[in-house]
Amino acid sequence: MALLFSFPVFLSTIMAGWQPSSSIGSIIRTFLSKYSLIRPNRIYPLLLIMLPFPAVNAHVRVGVTCGFLSSLNHHSRSISTPAFVPNNQNKVSRFNQQQQQRQPGGFRMVTTTKQRAASTKAEISSKIKEDQHSLVSDMLYRIRECNTPIPRDVIEFCVDGKTLGKVTPNLAKLLCSYSDKETESPVFQLTTKEGDKSVSTSPSRRILTLGEEAGTTCISRTNAIMSVMEQLRDDGFISGWRDELYPIAEGFYDEPLLLIERAAVPFVGGLEYGVHINGIVVVPSNKDGDDITTKMWMARRSKTKSKYPGMLDHIVAGGQPANMGLMENVIKECMEEAGIPDELVRKGIQPAGAISYETYVVPRNNRQGEKDDQIGVVSRAVMFCYDLTLPDGFVPKVVDGEVDHFFLWTMDEVMECMGKAYNDPMKPNCYVVVIDYLMRKGYVSPETPGYLDVLRELRSGYCC
Amino acid sequence: MALLFSFPVFLSTIMAGWQPSSSIGSIIRTFLSKYSLIRPNRIYPLLLIMLPFPAVNAHVRVGVTCGFLSSLNHHSRSISTPAFVPNNQNKVSRFNQQQQQRQPGGFRMVTTTKQRAASTKAEISSKIKEDQHSLVSDMLYRIRECNTPIPRDVIEFCVDGKTLGKVTPNLAKLLCSYSDKETESPVFQLTTKEGDKSVSTSPSRRILTLGEEAGTTCISRTNAIMSVMEQLRDDGFISGWRDELYPIAEGFYDEPLLLIERAAVPFVGGLEYGVHINGIVVVPSNKDGDDITTKMWMARRSKTKSKYPGMLDHIVAGGQPANMGLMENVIKECMEEAGIPDELVRKGIQPAGAISYETYVVPRNNRQGEKDDQIGVVSRAVMFCYDLTLPDGFVPKVVDGEVDHFFLWTMDEVMECMGKAYNDPMKPNCYVVVIDYLMRKGYVSPETPGYLDVLRELRSGYCC
Repeated sequence: MALLFSFPVFLSTIMAGWQPSSSIGSIIRTFLSKYSLIRPNRIYPLLLIMLPFPAVNAHVRVGVTCGFLSSLNHHSRSISTPAFVPNNQNKVSRFNQQQQQRQPGGFRMVTTTKQRAASTKAEISSKIKEDQHSLVSDMLYRIRECNTPIPRDVIEFCVDGKTLGKVTPNLAKLLCSYSDKETESPVFQLTTKEGDKSVSTSPSRRILTLGEEAGTTCISRTNAIMSVMEQLRDDGFISGWRDELYPIAEGFYDEPLLLIERAAVPFVGGLEYGVHINGIVVVPSNKDGDDITTKMWMARRSKTKSKYPGMLDHIVAGGQPANMGLMENVIKECMEEAGIPDELVRKGIQPAGAISYETYVVPRNNRQGEKDDQIGVVSRAVMFCYDLTLPDGFVPKVVDGEVDHFFLWTMDEVMECMGKAYNDPMKPNCYVVVIDYLMRKGYVSPETPGYLDVLRELRSGYCC
Repeated sequence: MALLFSFPVFLSTIMAGWQPSSSIGSIIRTFLSKYSLIRPNRIYPLLLIMLPFPAVNAHVRVGVTCGFLSSLNHHSRSISTPAFVPNNQNKVSRFNQQQQQRQPGGFRMVTTTKQRAASTKAEISSKIKEDQHSLVSDMLYRIRECNTPIPRDVIEFCVDGKTLGKVTPNLAKLLCSYSDKETESPVFQLTTKEGDKSVSTSPSRRILTLGEEAGTTCISRTNAIMSVMEQLRDDGFISGWRDELYPIAEGFYDEPLLLIERAAVPFVGGLEYGVHINGIVVVPSNKDGDDITTKMWMARRSKTKSKYPGMLDHIVAGGQPANMGLMENVIKECMEEAGIPDELVRKGIQPAGAISYETYVVPRNNRQGEKDDQIGVVSRAVMFCYDLTLPDGFVPKVVDGEVDHFFLWTMDEVMECMGKAYNDPMKPNCYVVVIDYLMRKGYVSPETPGYLDVLRELRSGYCC
């Protein structure tokens, strides 16, 4: 009986790879491989042999399966499996030379640390895998530059029971400390979700909302908030005042409950929307035209721009005004920023989803321009992404002076620019849109650890 | 002074569209439109006029802006803005005839309910908008069939401080009520995140974990859990036992902490992974080849399949075994399910992200096959999405008998099949993958309310 117990334990131990250098283990593995016993439909006879011994049955099954999996790791290394097989449309030249190389096994294999150490040599040989790992790591770095951690104690800004924004408790207190200049009654108030004004209840249930004095119409609320925001501007908290009213609603398609000066949107943690366009050119890269190289138009921002002067940018991007349709805005921005005629836009444009991010910003918020860590704001953005395929030969023109010049990049150059140490980076949120493009178009293999994190974090903000 | 107050109020009231039929309002609007005063760069002179009156300044600004926005609604209706301008590659034939039609204004305009009523006529005329609205509504219906609401009181299944799954409190109690058959000690236990075994603390901090008796290795845990799951099977809770061990880890790329029978994965609320492939054919639809029609290969599932017999399916889809790379699995499944040769797969495949969903399922969980609402499980899935462009003329073959036959659909047919009342639907999770394709390829206009909901809900489950 002891033998009945010990043999399966011994067998499963070997097969699970705990003695990878053991000659007995090798012999058993070679035997199983040779007679194709380690294929899924061959494992069951092995299990059947063990059936008469129910007490050890479960243990053996685990052992056999672990062994089976680890054997298959070796097995699968002999199968040619490129990490990434781009289709014609999206061929990446830097992978071309490496396509013949073989990828070591699958990831997500049942491996122990010892097995990993043993198989390191084989893995190092894969240049593709290494490139993809660093690309994904760079992408996460870039996405996280836009998605800085939001304080855990943020509370919601709610009006009419609808959540419109996110504010830190300190910012909420600051907002509550101001009154309407004319009526001298407070505009903002801290309360609970149930409308109980006592703030003594659990902090997690607190919300920032508007007092009764702010009224119940879009215009009355807008007036009341404007009065507070103008004082915050005068007191040095809000900079970059634009004299442009921005609608605040629960969702993009909802009627706004109030309007707010654009520079003050983060002071209630409201969502800002924009359109971002990837300018794409598809060029045949051999005579037959069956091999294709994709390029992307880039812009160098004007050195006189107030934000991110001289940095790299999309061919076209812009905030979404309240009074326009998205496509109307795309057509307008394409003409204004890059001189792309209406017809070319209509022919080549393709909406391709949206990405979102949340950034915690500590503005310079006093007259001395010093930062006060106590008053940070949550800047939240949703960017509608478009791909615009332009004809080979078309060159964008500088029209409104927001751009210094345009230039065409290969997708290799676009990917190189992701690097953490790249010394001429893009404007931070452009990276996020370009990363979304690379993910949609298959430039990253889903076998690369971090792939799912990139997909998730691309949509950290709100929408999707 | 009263006049100074009342005139701007009167002006802003008219301009905000509260008297859309008023002849004075029309005259002012016509005047503004005629002299192009209602363009963004023309609004500031108007504001400047009001500057000397600071007390009414804010109010006027709001009024003027509201009026400006509502005027632009009318204005923008005269601009030709198709809701959706597909590029060549993704032209949707049912939109072709309608492309010349004009879309009414932008959405997300500052409109009051009255204005909405007034503009209904103009909106009804837009067939494009109507089609897109019903498409998005159908998409949300299909996504929500896969994402049924999860009970709010689900608790985490954690091992080694890592969250591996989600279980309802009743399921957790059931699991805790079983002991290892051999050792007769309990396998699962309810505890708190801090390791305090007393269950009297806040329910929200409770977790399900493994007792000390389950050991600390992958094999010992697998054995202990296997013993419990076998008893659950014998007691009629788990059906469809597959004799296939599935790895449970924190993330897809992490080393598994335990293995579990595949049919039992939802009984710890673990994540299951799969590969789903959109089989695409691009056909020139005119002689010059500059107009292109996209089609999608569909499969009819075999009538003998245990799950979803006879329903529509992708050209190829399959679970992700632990012992394979994703691409290796794609190549294997393409050959096994549709007879697509290795070379065609490598040439035409493009990874395109992932989608995820969570379904709350109440299994038939007693010997009489009756459902017990008390014991529901959370089924969680992540599906890696691929687009496989196949040559025009290639026809997939039935190989392993899982498919009855294949057929080619136009994208119009694919979209029609989304309809709630469509009487020959796809297998539920296939819809989610196809919807992701339609969103990526621009078949839906981001101007359609619900667009951002579709994007968000496509990734309800976990990953992205």
